[in-house]
Amino acid sequence: MNTVKKYTTLILVGIIIVLAAVLTGVLVFLRNQPVQERGFQPLTEIAPMEPDSAKWGVNFPNQYTTFLKTKTNNIDTTYGGSSQFSWLERDPRQVILFAGYPFSKDYNDDRGHANALEDVRATKRLNLNDEDPKHTPATCYSCKSSDNPRLWAEMGMAAYDKMSFNEMTPNINNPIGCANCHEAGTMRLIVTNPALEEALKAQGKDWTTFTRQEMRTVVCANCHVEYYFKGDGKYLTFPWSNGTDINSIIKYYEDLGFKDWEYPGTGTPMLKAQHPEYEFFTAGSTHYNAGVSCSDCHMPYVREGAAKYSTHDVHSPLLNPQQACGQCHSDTEYVVRRVNAIQEQVATTKIATENAIIDAINAIKLAAENPNVDQELLNQARKLHREAQFMWDFVSAENSTGFHNPEYALKILAESTNLARQAQMLAAQSVNDMALLETGIYDKMDPKPTPAP
Amino acid sequence: MNTVKKYTTLILVGIIIVLAAVLTGVLVFLRNQPVQERGFQPLTEIAPMEPDSAKWGVNFPNQYTTFLKTKTNNIDTTYGGSSQFSWLERDPRQVILFAGYPFSKDYNDDRGHANALEDVRATKRLNLNDEDPKHTPATCYSCKSSDNPRLWAEMGMAAYDKMSFNEMTPNINNPIGCANCHEAGTMRLIVTNPALEEALKAQGKDWTTFTRQEMRTVVCANCHVEYYFKGDGKYLTFPWSNGTDINSIIKYYEDLGFKDWEYPGTGTPMLKAQHPEYEFFTAGSTHYNAGVSCSDCHMPYVREGAAKYSTHDVHSPLLNPQQACGQCHSDTEYVVRRVNAIQEQVATTKIATENAIIDAINAIKLAAENPNVDQELLNQARKLHREAQFMWDFVSAENSTGFHNPEYALKILAESTNLARQAQMLAAQSVNDMALLETGIYDKMDPKPTPAP
Repeated sequence: MNTVKKYTTLILVGIIIVLAAVLTGVLVFLRNQPVQERGFQPLTEIAPMEPDSAKWGVNFPNQYTTFLKTKTNNIDTTYGGSSQFSWLERDPRQVILFAGYPFSKDYNDDRGHANALEDVRATKRLNLNDEDPKHTPATCYSCKSSDNPRLWAEMGMAAYDKMSFNEMTPNINNPIGCANCHEAGTMRLIVTNPALEEALKAQGKDWTTFTRQEMRTVVCANCHVEYYFKGDGKYLTFPWSNGTDINSIIKYYEDLGFKDWEYPGTGTPMLKAQHPEYEFFTAGSTHYNAGVSCSDCHMPYVREGAAKYSTHDVHSPLLNPQQACGQCHSDTEYVVRRVNAIQEQVATTKIATENAIIDAINAIKLAAENPNVDQELLNQARKLHREAQFMWDFVSAENSTGFHNPEYALKILAESTNLARQAQMLAAQSVNDMALLETGIYDKMDPKPTPAP
Repeated sequence: MNTVKKYTTLILVGIIIVLAAVLTGVLVFLRNQPVQERGFQPLTEIAPMEPDSAKWGVNFPNQYTTFLKTKTNNIDTTYGGSSQFSWLERDPRQVILFAGYPFSKDYNDDRGHANALEDVRATKRLNLNDEDPKHTPATCYSCKSSDNPRLWAEMGMAAYDKMSFNEMTPNINNPIGCANCHEAGTMRLIVTNPALEEALKAQGKDWTTFTRQEMRTVVCANCHVEYYFKGDGKYLTFPWSNGTDINSIIKYYEDLGFKDWEYPGTGTPMLKAQHPEYEFFTAGSTHYNAGVSCSDCHMPYVREGAAKYSTHDVHSPLLNPQQACGQCHSDTEYVVRRVNAIQEQVATTKIATENAIIDAINAIKLAAENPNVDQELLNQARKLHREAQFMWDFVSAENSTGFHNPEYALKILAESTNLARQAQMLAAQSVNDMALLETGIYDKMDPKPTPAP
């Protein structure tokens, strides 16, 4: 009996020790997991595609609180930032480069996510006269609101895009928010923009098979991409079916014969590049090749007391280099100096490219005015003008002043400059007029162009 | 008495323990020091500036054995290497770009250090006819032999450079070796080339104050730099007094009105860039800014048994990435892919620049033949041709296909292309002839130029 009792005691003590160890392990594990990866009891249930981020915020107060900071995080870096400064005032060459297109009237740098809705409604680029056949379509809301996933699911993107911006306005009440990237309940990262899903499919890719780390880049491609409005239905489309590198995108638009607008005076069918951060970053950049995602730098993990979470105050890592770059780089002062050096080189080269394109524009304008112009040569000049400007814009509209992929930026700018100069030469040849070979036209302009009021 | 004895024993034991600890510490320290930093008894005494590296090799067998490997390390990488392949055959555009200059006849890639003397004597670039006023000066031996430090010390560089190559030949018996970078006895790294000492002084720099890590880059600048032969005395000179960045070097040559040769047909006063590795790498490259020296990658520390030493088998780190890059980068496969991606981008952009320069050359040639040419415009075209080609050559002659400073390479190539196109346009304007605006001339050439036999 005594022996049995003794063994029982020993067994009990053993069980207690094992349980205590397991419990300690679990607690340590939980403490080191990001909040969103813990199994947890939600305080409130979120409806599928719930547009109101405040409701998600009940369960995820840290993520929500930091997301709200994007409303006021309007700080600039040397070459970019979030203060809504005017690109047209900062670099009046762009007034010329976008002449005849709304971007020549109003081209402010983007503010944080929470301002998306307010800012799209305020921009002078929109034509809100629904009587005008060139009125602004609802498609312009595609990247501005967390109401979209629900609307797309309910009505389909084709019907959505066929509506006018004004018709859609009553349905849109929330800026970009949780529902644009997360599935309610599971909180997993998802592709919500049908245009992205279709563009991936066109390349034989299925995002549901992607790893979480891949999704931490791909969800940004819900919006941070090159796109256009296809056909009369203004159907949101990413030009990716040949691939996402710049040459594949140019070929796509060539094959389609697509233009965003015709440049006044030159008659060039122009393309406007949007914000191709995804295409630019994933084109073999060193960070992408090393397995770094957009979120790693723009939404780094932060600690607040016992909580560790991915900040949703998305902005330039130059504003919090220790948190952002410091996750991998021990010497963040060095890293910041390097980013600045790269951006300075890209910004300088970009201006030289702009000057070359402006020279080409001026030459083509003069040629197009001439009744004796050789149309074939003129059209060749236009084709190079179109390509040169799209290439420049692909780097210029991309929100990193080249940093997301520095060699790619500089290689593209070198090629753009070369094409712009050749466009100018073809224009001169088309009318046999040496005067069209004048260079440095922007610097000789007096007065310099100023943005329309 | 007993107490005294007891204390004495204790003190003795204490002393023994302390001594044993110190001895262990010293041994551990020595084991972890590179050989050349240990105080050691040399097996043989090396005379100051001893030209025969085999004698130094008695004291430093590992360094010497690895140095000897440079005789046969003739392995290529994708874009470079040490096999003495012909640049003119690999890229026949260079036959055109260097027309009228010896580099259009013979331009082989460089082999390892131990071949320097044999290769300089074999190249068809030399004019060994001393009767010809344009004979090859002794200056061409400056970077080819470990006899130089002693000769420079004995006779002075001015007298050395005034001799002809043939006159100097009997004095030169050893290829590049120990004495080019080391001080006998102390083995410290030293500047031995008077041209480097003078170029540093012109910038207010005194190399004797440099750290050892700085010297691990600066000794390479004894040779791996841009230089020219100044005046009739063919005095070896580095064009650094305005600074070592490319614009400062161009300004130096402009102020001096210096030319290496006149381009046949165009009449352009040309500049040949040599191998500006030092200027290119130190112009804000990421590795230089991070404190990395040339030797860290090209002469990494290696272990052989108990010995740890800096290999003197200097060659591309792409051939031993684990030893070279692996000192800092854990994933060398990734690093090699990245180097290849950068070099591919630079190599592609470089070809586009070459095509633009060839178009400019052809246009300027045609203009120069025309008796009614506007000389002022033609001279402007020549000036841009000169600058464009020097910029291209600064990247092309630099031995890294841009890798030593990728953004710098691409920025320079973008600017070079822009200038070349403007040169072509000015040439057309100078004779009012649209035919000069033809582009893609190299691709239309049939047959393509082949190197002279």
